[in-house]
Amino acid sequence: MTNRKEPASGEDSLIARYFEPLATDPGAFGLADDAAVLQARGEDIVVTTDAIVEGVHFLADDPPDTIARKALRVNLSDLAAKGANPAGFVLTLALRAADDAWLTAFARGLGEDASRFDCPLLGGDTVSTPGPLMISITAFGRVPAGKMVHRSGAKPGDRIVVTGTIGDAALGLDVLKGGALAAALAGDVAAKEMVTGRYRVPQPRNALALTLRDHAHAAMDVSDGLAGDLAKLCAASGVSAVIDAPSVPLSTPAASLLTRAIIGIEAILSGGDDYEILCAIPEDRVEAFVQAAAAAGVAATPIGTILAGTQPPKFLDGQGGEIVLRRLSYSHF
Amino acid sequence: MTNRKEPASGEDSLIARYFEPLATDPGAFGLADDAAVLQARGEDIVVTTDAIVEGVHFLADDPPDTIARKALRVNLSDLAAKGANPAGFVLTLALRAADDAWLTAFARGLGEDASRFDCPLLGGDTVSTPGPLMISITAFGRVPAGKMVHRSGAKPGDRIVVTGTIGDAALGLDVLKGGALAAALAGDVAAKEMVTGRYRVPQPRNALALTLRDHAHAAMDVSDGLAGDLAKLCAASGVSAVIDAPSVPLSTPAASLLTRAIIGIEAILSGGDDYEILCAIPEDRVEAFVQAAAAAGVAATPIGTILAGTQPPKFLDGQGGEIVLRRLSYSHF
Repeated sequence: MTNRKEPASGEDSLIARYFEPLATDPGAFGLADDAAVLQARGEDIVVTTDAIVEGVHFLADDPPDTIARKALRVNLSDLAAKGANPAGFVLTLALRAADDAWLTAFARGLGEDASRFDCPLLGGDTVSTPGPLMISITAFGRVPAGKMVHRSGAKPGDRIVVTGTIGDAALGLDVLKGGALAAALAGDVAAKEMVTGRYRVPQPRNALALTLRDHAHAAMDVSDGLAGDLAKLCAASGVSAVIDAPSVPLSTPAASLLTRAIIGIEAILSGGDDYEILCAIPEDRVEAFVQAAAAAGVAATPIGTILAGTQPPKFLDGQGGEIVLRRLSYSHF
Repeated sequence: MTNRKEPASGEDSLIARYFEPLATDPGAFGLADDAAVLQARGEDIVVTTDAIVEGVHFLADDPPDTIARKALRVNLSDLAAKGANPAGFVLTLALRAADDAWLTAFARGLGEDASRFDCPLLGGDTVSTPGPLMISITAFGRVPAGKMVHRSGAKPGDRIVVTGTIGDAALGLDVLKGGALAAALAGDVAAKEMVTGRYRVPQPRNALALTLRDHAHAAMDVSDGLAGDLAKLCAASGVSAVIDAPSVPLSTPAASLLTRAIIGIEAILSGGDDYEILCAIPEDRVEAFVQAAAAAGVAATPIGTILAGTQPPKFLDGQGGEIVLRRLSYSHF
């Protein structure tokens, strides 16, 4: 049912009208065939898939263009963490109805990001659902053969580095849901806009793909919460880790909320939706990595160290005491 | 969020328990990384994506293993039509709850088909939804560089050929919904099982991939109805067509229902869910194509001819009169 186009059908004219302009890659065949072609070029194709569901990963009243951007960017973030350069994506869109204004804004946001990240639409499927809106994207990247950056390569002694700032998106979700932070930040429009923007529109670190391939022993993106995702990286690598919690990079609003004890550190470390890169960098390459990231416009901050062993990662406070986290990350089930 | 595995999280243990055994390809990394790798091998990667939604593409009380098979097979059918050999797939599963018995049966059906069609699970995402169950699959195939079979290559004079029989799945859906055919076929258990089986578990024609690459000017699979899908193939190729409706291959139950005037020809031609191959074969290769298909265990039947022009395809009855179809195919919107 992929990529069809025929004037007689509502589904097909919907695809032609809104999505054909995004299918700029010759391998998409203008969305007029049943499938797309990714040319080999001697590289490995990296494949990742992530779905977002209304009411779970985005809110029903989020602007349609930010929903589209988030759907694509959570996948771009996986490609970035794997050291892959974007090659294209396919889209499954489950809609209750074909609303022109909504689809126009959605396709505009999607098209702008597809262009910005050089990741063209290759195909898709549009289906009707009586349930919540859902967008599932499978994205493709290219790496030189055998050069995908894995979760599993971290080695004792590696420094643990994260990009950007952590925790903002979870604060933004609380604000959007009218939680306690909406009141705490009531007078600070700029802070509210920043954190809600982080929730709605992740900033995938695709500019770091080459730098990660050059330097990282292991990497993943932080999607479900720094604590839980670090535990996954450590489990995949067969190592443990220690994190100096005060080193975790925070935005000004997050730092202020933490200082004022309006939030606890758990909200930061387990919040999720960060879409920053978490990686293990050999000690002797940390400086080069941080400099290369800065040159690409991305802050990269060492926050801890990979240890031998299989114990869960520890988070230490400023006095060296262990921070006990009740939950590590978001889980659907 | 792809491919995670960590004992602490319900979502991750769900993936590990049910789906890791299906991830037999080394490029899947045991579903323990954020992404999979498809190695290049100098071939083109063909990409197709199709979603199925509870209540739309399958029924809530369909057996879980047949739901899994259908989700994969509708994608395998696209690969077959494009002349591509299956290489693997990624799965997005939107569930209301994690029900052990349901997931066990679903994973078993999916695993059996992944093995049967040599199409391993490469990755996936499992999300919660308050709405209907939805399964979105993106499948990958390999073709020699530049050799994908397109919709757009049909030429005037080509014979139009379909595989298998047409219309059974639509009859099966009517039976499953307790429609008029459930009563008409009440005494014929074998016929009911055949048509409902055709609806629930398509038979993708992957055995014909090489034969299609060798002989077909154009091909697609019949998913939304023969009439509508032929119109799409003609539109993509810039041609018209004429079909001899009595030549359209029918199963014994379908032929009997038609003869007894319990159904009209429209139910056959516009029914959908056939997942047979519709292709345009040059006249001088039809015999070789039909023989090669038979050798692969698949019946292939010439049903009409590609014509010059851009008029919609015509369906003629046994007396040469034009059959007017009120609708050509199923459309979601």
